[in-house]
Amino acid sequence: MDFFKLITVRESCRNYTGEPVPRETLKKILNAARLAPSACNSQPWSFVVADTPDAVRHAVECVQDGGANKFTDKAPAFILIVEEHAQLSPRIADRLDSQHFAQIDLGLATAHLCLAAAEEGLGTCIMGLFSEEKAKAYFSIPSEKRVRLIISVGYSADSAPRAKSRKPLDELVRFV
Amino acid sequence: MDFFKLITVRESCRNYTGEPVPRETLKKILNAARLAPSACNSQPWSFVVADTPDAVRHAVECVQDGGANKFTDKAPAFILIVEEHAQLSPRIADRLDSQHFAQIDLGLATAHLCLAAAEEGLGTCIMGLFSEEKAKAYFSIPSEKRVRLIISVGYSADSAPRAKSRKPLDELVRFV
Repeated sequence: MDFFKLITVRESCRNYTGEPVPRETLKKILNAARLAPSACNSQPWSFVVADTPDAVRHAVECVQDGGANKFTDKAPAFILIVEEHAQLSPRIADRLDSQHFAQIDLGLATAHLCLAAAEEGLGTCIMGLFSEEKAKAYFSIPSEKRVRLIISVGYSADSAPRAKSRKPLDELVRFV
Repeated sequence: MDFFKLITVRESCRNYTGEPVPRETLKKILNAARLAPSACNSQPWSFVVADTPDAVRHAVECVQDGGANKFTDKAPAFILIVEEHAQLSPRIADRLDSQHFAQIDLGLATAHLCLAAAEEGLGTCIMGLFSEEKAKAYFSIPSEKRVRLIISVGYSADSAPRAKSRKPLDELVRFV
């Protein structure tokens, strides 16, 4: 699909058919995340994928903690985005903390992942609100690491993408 | 272009022809950034575009500060990614700082921008090391804001994309 079409098709999907996603398809979109750019090519990310019934139930518990994200009941898979140590090049590591760019880098990888999912006909929703404590416990993630996002992945039960609501370009951009 | 092809074509371009980029093309890739997802649709970003001789000279001074990024001498345009206040939804704003997701969101918008540029036949390089102080002074950006990235934009003088060097997928991904 043309990229400018793809970004209008990608949206936060909060309505899934429940149909499972083949592991090969999940690997394909994870590979797109793998190829994202990052500061000094540090690739400060890893991905935990919940796509079995037990794991999905646990992921749902994490994202619905406190009553949030109720729409995830029928999502067939979840991808946890874990921040890893970033090895920056020596010249930059002298001046900045190792994790200085890590969240930006996770954003880059997450965009790759969600756009790849859209290209594969999948819906995703990027969630920032969840029980990180439960996620670490359920999925054996070391306590000192940060789980930054959990992404639901599945086939959308909606018939067409919604129109996007965004600030107008001329409010955001200044040519100098 | 198919998305899985596009992500192999997008790379950090450090060799530009010097040919100017039409403003309409810059607006097209900025519009792709505008359509990126963000926490609570907060869109915590703005973009300062340097594409006139004086502005480009100033941008080059910012990114080459301290002897870095020498490859930018022939880049015809630069886009500064500015972090703006994020208005989160009340339920989330009760629990988290307004800027909690802002850097991830800037990463999402930056990926959209660089992939859109690749779709348009343009090369980009995402730079995190530059004089933020000079950038704020030259481009009249309020001192309390953060300029998180500067992206060079132009036509690549390289003949073909390089092979990507990344960690293997099975080192990054764990199915549970």
